[in-house]
Amino acid sequence: LTKMKNQITSALSDFFFEYETPRQVLVRNRRVGVVCRLIQLGVLVYIIGWVFIYEKGYQSTDTAVSSVFTKMKGVGYTNNSGGERVWDVADYVFPSQGDSSFVVMTNYIMTEGQSMGTCPELPGKHNCNTDADCEGGSFKRTGNGEMTGVCVNRTKTCEVLAWCPVEDDRDVPDPPLLLSAENYTLFIKNSVTFPAFGVSRSNLVEDVDSNYISSCLYHPLSAPLCPIFKLGDIIKLSGLNFQTVAKVGGAIGIVVDWTCNFDVHVKHCKPEYTFHGLYGSKEGSSVGYNFRFARHYMEDKIQKRTLLKVFGIRFDIIVQSLARKFDIIPTLTAIGSGVGIFGVATVVCDLVLLYLLPKREFYKNMKFKYTDTQVQVRPSKMSLCSL
Amino acid sequence: LTKMKNQITSALSDFFFEYETPRQVLVRNRRVGVVCRLIQLGVLVYIIGWVFIYEKGYQSTDTAVSSVFTKMKGVGYTNNSGGERVWDVADYVFPSQGDSSFVVMTNYIMTEGQSMGTCPELPGKHNCNTDADCEGGSFKRTGNGEMTGVCVNRTKTCEVLAWCPVEDDRDVPDPPLLLSAENYTLFIKNSVTFPAFGVSRSNLVEDVDSNYISSCLYHPLSAPLCPIFKLGDIIKLSGLNFQTVAKVGGAIGIVVDWTCNFDVHVKHCKPEYTFHGLYGSKEGSSVGYNFRFARHYMEDKIQKRTLLKVFGIRFDIIVQSLARKFDIIPTLTAIGSGVGIFGVATVVCDLVLLYLLPKREFYKNMKFKYTDTQVQVRPSKMSLCSL
Amino acid sequence: LTKMKNQITSALSDFFFEYETPRQVLVRNRRVGVVCRLIQLGVLVYIIGWVFIYEKGYQSTDTAVSSVFTKMKGVGYTNNSGGERVWDVADYVFPSQGDSSFVVMTNYIMTEGQSMGTCPELPGKHNCNTDADCEGGSFKRTGNGEMTGVCVNRTKTCEVLAWCPVEDDRDVPDPPLLLSAENYTLFIKNSVTFPAFGVSRSNLVEDVDSNYISSCLYHPLSAPLCPIFKLGDIIKLSGLNFQTVAKVGGAIGIVVDWTCNFDVHVKHCKPEYTFHGLYGSKEGSSVGYNFRFARHYMEDKIQKRTLLKVFGIRFDIIVQSLARKFDIIPTLTAIGSGVGIFGVATVVCDLVLLYLLPKREFYKNMKFKYTDTQVQVRPSKMSLCSL
Repeated sequence: LTKMKNQITSALSDFFFEYETPRQVLVRNRRVGVVCRLIQLGVLVYIIGWVFIYEKGYQSTDTAVSSVFTKMKGVGYTNNSGGERVWDVADYVFPSQGDSSFVVMTNYIMTEGQSMGTCPELPGKHNCNTDADCEGGSFKRTGNGEMTGVCVNRTKTCEVLAWCPVEDDRDVPDPPLLLSAENYTLFIKNSVTFPAFGVSRSNLVEDVDSNYISSCLYHPLSAPLCPIFKLGDIIKLSGLNFQTVAKVGGAIGIVVDWTCNFDVHVKHCKPEYTFHGLYGSKEGSSVGYNFRFARHYMEDKIQKRTLLKVFGIRFDIIVQSLARKFDIIPTLTAIGSGVGIFGVATVVCDLVLLYLLPKREFYKNMKFKYTDTQVQVRPSKMSLCSL
Repeated sequence: LTKMKNQITSALSDFFFEYETPRQVLVRNRRVGVVCRLIQLGVLVYIIGWVFIYEKGYQSTDTAVSSVFTKMKGVGYTNNSGGERVWDVADYVFPSQGDSSFVVMTNYIMTEGQSMGTCPELPGKHNCNTDADCEGGSFKRTGNGEMTGVCVNRTKTCEVLAWCPVEDDRDVPDPPLLLSAENYTLFIKNSVTFPAFGVSRSNLVEDVDSNYISSCLYHPLSAPLCPIFKLGDIIKLSGLNFQTVAKVGGAIGIVVDWTCNFDVHVKHCKPEYTFHGLYGSKEGSSVGYNFRFARHYMEDKIQKRTLLKVFGIRFDIIVQSLARKFDIIPTLTAIGSGVGIFGVATVVCDLVLLYLLPKREFYKNMKFKYTDTQVQVRPSKMSLCSL
Repeated sequence: LTKMKNQITSALSDFFFEYETPRQVLVRNRRVGVVCRLIQLGVLVYIIGWVFIYEKGYQSTDTAVSSVFTKMKGVGYTNNSGGERVWDVADYVFPSQGDSSFVVMTNYIMTEGQSMGTCPELPGKHNCNTDADCEGGSFKRTGNGEMTGVCVNRTKTCEVLAWCPVEDDRDVPDPPLLLSAENYTLFIKNSVTFPAFGVSRSNLVEDVDSNYISSCLYHPLSAPLCPIFKLGDIIKLSGLNFQTVAKVGGAIGIVVDWTCNFDVHVKHCKPEYTFHGLYGSKEGSSVGYNFRFARHYMEDKIQKRTLLKVFGIRFDIIVQSLARKFDIIPTLTAIGSGVGIFGVATVVCDLVLLYLLPKREFYKNMKFKYTDTQVQVRPSKMSLCSL
């Protein structure tokens, strides 16, 4: 027993008190030395400069879950055939509850007093000469209703069962009826939570208190943190022309960018707002933004509706987030993989040493020791295992 | 001073003109050689074949921020007790402004002319025999209103203060009233931006111009890029039966998949559309999709409303994106970590060489040089540092 | 030809039957041995314990695409100047179609019978003494309409063209009118799909059948999987006071957390619900949540509207997901990079051996073999290539 104990103790002490280190050949050769050192330097600069400093490889990343609430303010005014009218928030924002994606009406075609009945289609929608051109009971995908089979002489179009009179949207009002939308203001409330780091932030950061909010207006340089935006400014900053967009409608993305480094104080984690037009601008393919909206009511026991073809600016508040914080795992992974690349440097140097130099046979004999006694001249030998 | 300069110069030249390479033992042994080469080959095949070619480890990835706009077209027709009626976009789409998530009504139960008052509950909702069964002032979670404490003899149910008459939703119309929804078309406009690569794309890609859009209809094989979808096709492609879904409602996910490789020309980055039913289909648990919707109006100075229980198909446009592009960081990380795995191969070979072969003592003496003069026979020695 | 064949065969057999292994110096030194072994042990513990067990480095991850549908149940009751009224789902939920983000009305200011006309502004909004204070045709951003240029003597405020009478929102009803909202219930249906693993799950998991749903109510401990939530419970669990939130409104995030490990059976992948108030609670800056909503109707051929300033609780269902599954790539990457870190251990040991020990010159001579005959004493030599 004592013998076995001794053996184990000896084996353990052998293991703990010994240390292996590879035996090396020191090759004193200018060409190989310079090549080797430059490759090593390159790898070192890459690991430290690129992976660590530029790409921040020592940090782990997280994206946020976010919640957005919006509120419009401002009053519009129109004075067309229907008389003077003002439009307030409850009238021009769709939907009304302050979603992150909403539409501000800037132009409209209103068809009042529609009721269910028969009337001729809009000229151009479904032209006809005789009743035979209008197949009763059938639909046209882009039409307004079900054809009755009658061709109305006066308009030379088919008669349809539909909400009558049908909407005439051939002329879009120009200039847009609600040009005053330029002066509306948009208030954005955005809260983000980075679950991996346990940090919550609101776009009403430390310096943005109720006092500041009551008077500020966003400006990319002088007030980049003010969460109140003038619609005209947003359109201008996204590179569009307000009057064009207001007439046919459009879509604007408001990107709230949270790029945060939690290795510094959390108060430096601030949102950045950028604005850009969505859906590109391929002329002719599908410009503009509009939708139809109806208000139903009863008049003299008859169901009626007011149809609005709304042209408007659709705002999408897009929250983009990327937080970084020091983490031991990516740090060690980066170091470990850098060390691996160092091994590649050794392989390259060895190839130069053993295959390109005039004295290669001399170096081969220095580097390798053969286990078999008959020393052959080996034609090709790559030291893969030396990695 | 000159001496010190000389020393530094000498040290630097030593450092730059010298090169270390590990000394190796060349073991000429078939068994060990084959094992070692096979392991190395396996690692090489894994790194090149799997990490680089299959998993594209040389590329970095990014997901997109996206914006979706939808537009329905088509007219529905019903002819029930209320007379002939057509339903257009403003009537059957909720909400109307073209969101990425919306509902198309396919069936409904309409309760017209509700006003605030007292009336008996629906049979089955809260049955009673005497007034004592109906506790005045209390609510039932699934009831329609506040109980007045009276049991109505005629219906044998409690009387409630509610919008009266209460909705009777015991029979869902079958066949669904708006079967014509099958022919409606859906137009999807989707723009994606990959912020890391600075690339923006729209689902109206190069070949999809206004001419094409005006006439095309999506088909998975013959027109996979047309952004106009027939509702009936969507339901069929998602593996559901239109008539069933139209009756009780359902939810369909339309996935727009942007899997892009930016190492090739950006025009090859095209969306792919797939369709699938959402929420599973566990019979009995919670099938169908419906919600209640009211239109308020005034009649003879009394507030009234038309209540619609809407059964419909809810469409969720889900944008999924993954773009890849060559990046030096993941490439070198993959190489570096592959080199590290090569080191594992050496360790395995050494274990075979030093512990399993009959001539192991011979190889041990070849490989190791001992710093202490008394050469012991070492029982166990693992060359951890040789990694 | 036979000779060439022989040569190739010989080269191949050389390559396949040979094996290189680095020659090592076995340093029998207690200090160096212990340092080296401890460093190696630390690296081993880090790789196995931290990267593999704690951070699950052997798994790849994926996030889900998800779809949410919500449904409210319950009836509210108010008895104010307008008489007794009940409020059902169609009245108090905005929007009605069951989105993942919606508002439950808990308090309101109703302004009935507004029509387009002129009336004095609300006291405090735009005070005046003479007509000169009210510039005709101009707007105030926070005002209700367009100024006519008249100062109304009675109220000492400017007259505006607006929906008249203007809303008086100076007093918010307290206690909130719809305190009964506390007893409403919310049903959440959520389906998630992990595209990388091809797994779809619904929050109606295996144990949650239609029987259970019809009777259960969420409780964090006794019923954590029941998808039916009482509003009062949600508010309490998110750390807020119901009466306060109900009065001025607020925003609650309901996080559905899918953290799944697909190395075990998929049935263990279950949602977890947590609740927290959004937008922080910086007093004074921007507490509460409200929006304005109008119901339009015709009365005696005049367009009128009922304006509701809705105070409510906004619920955002936020789906957070992270699934993990064994994957060979991250496993080998972790191993490979761990092996690289092992190399760092060798470098540290070598530095100790060659620069700090008294017998360093002896060890240097053991480790290095010089290719030039004149053996110098080298002052500084770092074995970078030995990595």
